[in-house]
Amino acid sequence: MPAEAQPQSYRFADTLKRLLRRNAGPAIRKILRRTHPVDLAHVMGRFLIQEQLKLLPNVGDDERQAEVVASMAMTDVEALLHEMPTERAVAVLSAMSADDRTDIMGAVDEELAGRLLSAMPDAESHEVAELLRYDEATAGGIMSPEFIAIPQDTTAAEAIAMVQDSADVEMAFYLYVVNEHGVLSGVLSLRQLVISRPAKAISEVMDPHVLSVRTDEDQEEVARIVSRYDLLAVPVVDDTNKLVGVVTVDDVLDVVREEATEDILKMAGAGEQFEDRPTVLGSLWRRAPWLAVAWVGGIAASFVIGRFEGTLQKYVVLAAFIPIIVGMAGNVGTQTLAVVVRGLATRRIDVKQFWKVVGREMAVGVLLGLAFGAALGGMGFVEVRSEPGVNALMMAGVIGAAAAISMVIAATMGSVMPLILARLRVDPAVATGPFVTTAIDVVGVAVYFNIVVFFL
Amino acid sequence: MPAEAQPQSYRFADTLKRLLRRNAGPAIRKILRRTHPVDLAHVMGRFLIQEQLKLLPNVGDDERQAEVVASMAMTDVEALLHEMPTERAVAVLSAMSADDRTDIMGAVDEELAGRLLSAMPDAESHEVAELLRYDEATAGGIMSPEFIAIPQDTTAAEAIAMVQDSADVEMAFYLYVVNEHGVLSGVLSLRQLVISRPAKAISEVMDPHVLSVRTDEDQEEVARIVSRYDLLAVPVVDDTNKLVGVVTVDDVLDVVREEATEDILKMAGAGEQFEDRPTVLGSLWRRAPWLAVAWVGGIAASFVIGRFEGTLQKYVVLAAFIPIIVGMAGNVGTQTLAVVVRGLATRRIDVKQFWKVVGREMAVGVLLGLAFGAALGGMGFVEVRSEPGVNALMMAGVIGAAAAISMVIAATMGSVMPLILARLRVDPAVATGPFVTTAIDVVGVAVYFNIVVFFL
Repeated sequence: MPAEAQPQSYRFADTLKRLLRRNAGPAIRKILRRTHPVDLAHVMGRFLIQEQLKLLPNVGDDERQAEVVASMAMTDVEALLHEMPTERAVAVLSAMSADDRTDIMGAVDEELAGRLLSAMPDAESHEVAELLRYDEATAGGIMSPEFIAIPQDTTAAEAIAMVQDSADVEMAFYLYVVNEHGVLSGVLSLRQLVISRPAKAISEVMDPHVLSVRTDEDQEEVARIVSRYDLLAVPVVDDTNKLVGVVTVDDVLDVVREEATEDILKMAGAGEQFEDRPTVLGSLWRRAPWLAVAWVGGIAASFVIGRFEGTLQKYVVLAAFIPIIVGMAGNVGTQTLAVVVRGLATRRIDVKQFWKVVGREMAVGVLLGLAFGAALGGMGFVEVRSEPGVNALMMAGVIGAAAAISMVIAATMGSVMPLILARLRVDPAVATGPFVTTAIDVVGVAVYFNIVVFFL
Repeated sequence: MPAEAQPQSYRFADTLKRLLRRNAGPAIRKILRRTHPVDLAHVMGRFLIQEQLKLLPNVGDDERQAEVVASMAMTDVEALLHEMPTERAVAVLSAMSADDRTDIMGAVDEELAGRLLSAMPDAESHEVAELLRYDEATAGGIMSPEFIAIPQDTTAAEAIAMVQDSADVEMAFYLYVVNEHGVLSGVLSLRQLVISRPAKAISEVMDPHVLSVRTDEDQEEVARIVSRYDLLAVPVVDDTNKLVGVVTVDDVLDVVREEATEDILKMAGAGEQFEDRPTVLGSLWRRAPWLAVAWVGGIAASFVIGRFEGTLQKYVVLAAFIPIIVGMAGNVGTQTLAVVVRGLATRRIDVKQFWKVVGREMAVGVLLGLAFGAALGGMGFVEVRSEPGVNALMMAGVIGAAAAISMVIAATMGSVMPLILARLRVDPAVATGPFVTTAIDVVGVAVYFNIVVFFL
């Protein structure tokens, strides 16, 4: 049960370390052979490279070693491959699926990649070079070039023989049918093949309405297609509609997870993705630019308030309401942003519905503004009542109105900004959080003090 | 190509509406038959119920109609089933997979559910009742009870015959092997079966190390297992290890997407999920509670500032720096929160590493605080220099120190709060955004004015 393997991993690693110190080969082998390669991959990072080198051969055959390495964190893989004898590294890489092999070759440093590529069989190194041409975040970048392509004039019996011969294709549940030029012409499931009469022509069994994506299709769009149509894999074709690869649902699942993480981190202005080994300096580097944006906005807000120093001198109690007015607007802005950015990402919101979305969000902002503005006005009246020389009712009205108006503006900005970005084909998640909250800070204080000056 | 179907959907719906008005049956049928059921489901919401009732029979046989209905928004499904003749509704539901059918029966109102269930074949209504017993967000709630279970003493040839006979099992790529009590004992892929010698016993071909989940396993954990081990499906077993269902990867993909949306919306305090038909009042209702939290915090902040009215009266320029000090701290807090909450959700951060995570985030906070505190102090010096009766250097130091300290506190709160929630087994995303930013607002002004009073 994997559910148990994970919590135990500290203890698991400790046990292995003890056995390594004792050079207890057979015991190590016994433990490693009965553990899932993915679980082994997750504990590998806890060992020194020299220990990893000792552990790996005990995991099992090249296939199993490849499964472990393919699931390890990329920085660990790079370090490990550096220290492995070239022929062992190549053997493990060869036992991997082509897409995993390519991901690794694209991520390690050039010297290492060059050394390994030149030691690989020509067919494999060519394949890696071919695949590395595609942008990482496209269908071509995540596809596997290993698939079963059946010529359309084959019979069911011949097709079954082809499946039996193609041992190293991962997850063969869809079989793709191609014409004499390798152009994709249909699809059938392994199961449909099994149920077909042996003499039947594949072209009669297959479904000619096969969904496919182009090599340059964005991986998010590939994920959307796979999840929309509940597919297990989607074939990838080149400009001439020739079948060149397959994206399987397990890779799509990774894409969906990564994109969600990216959206969350981007919205908060905290980078784009998690690092394998997070460092304090790395975090600093990723977060500082967005804080700099907020800093500039804050300075702008301080200049705005500075302009109203005379007013503040007269009604110093006004200062007490700066955080709540700015804060409420910021919260409404964040709520609106989250709904619109995620709505766009999941295609629940269509960029074309600009006015519908903005109108709805503004309506929500107006109602929230009225409710919380009134509440703040009431509270303001209580706080201000005892101040000397102040028209408490007027003051309360001003505070409430400022809160309400800045909340409406915040809801408007929170919906307009991501929609405009999406129209410009910029990812609407790009640190919209810091941008919008900062803009709201400035607008909030400006609204507040202008209303104050106007009415008092 | 699905990529084209979606943008066209406005025009697509308009064309269909025109044909409906003209009663152009054959033309409608032609269009509907060549459109993917999922695409049809997505445009159905644009039609009146009476139009939907006319369109549905033209989609194709019951299977295809079922595919359309199963992919429609639940509120539309409910409205449509209400208006459909009972026997048609039951025919369409019967043509659906059991998990889709159960989702619908669990979502529609009781009167409708009762009417449809009593009109269904007994076997189906019993199955629905069985499945509805499981919590929606567990393995039992998302599993399909249709799977191919092969007795372990079968031969490969007999197993192939079983696959050929079980036509209505969706996505049969794994075959599960059970003992005489129905207890799960192994797994093999359809492909392994196809390559096996016909006379070979299944127990020799299967992999006895089969991963499974219990019916009450949380759907997020199921999703994590499927994506960790790159599975296409995971078998679900009851307390006695008896195989009762299968969760397929397409359902897992939906879970991953929904959970990510939930995290984003929760963090922003904007509800938990998108509504099928978002309404202004619904949004109001979901967002108001979190704004109320922020409101209370804002009032607290205003009382804190109120206590320092004398100080503010003397140094009114201090008010200008309230938004930037509170804002910078808020931004650091949000960044930290996003990293920690998402890290916990994706298991990149382990709750047990409490001090490691908090220490790291505090270190980042200290460095960011030093950098931006110094910058703000410098800027403050420039702004304050010309004020009469103010020690500009002292004032600048105070402003910078206040910014730095509140940023460190913000980083600490942003990491401690979600970790504590996770330890208490509460979802760390629960509107941590509004809670933390509000707490930071109060702490920020308190730090600021206390430092001011101490030094000036």
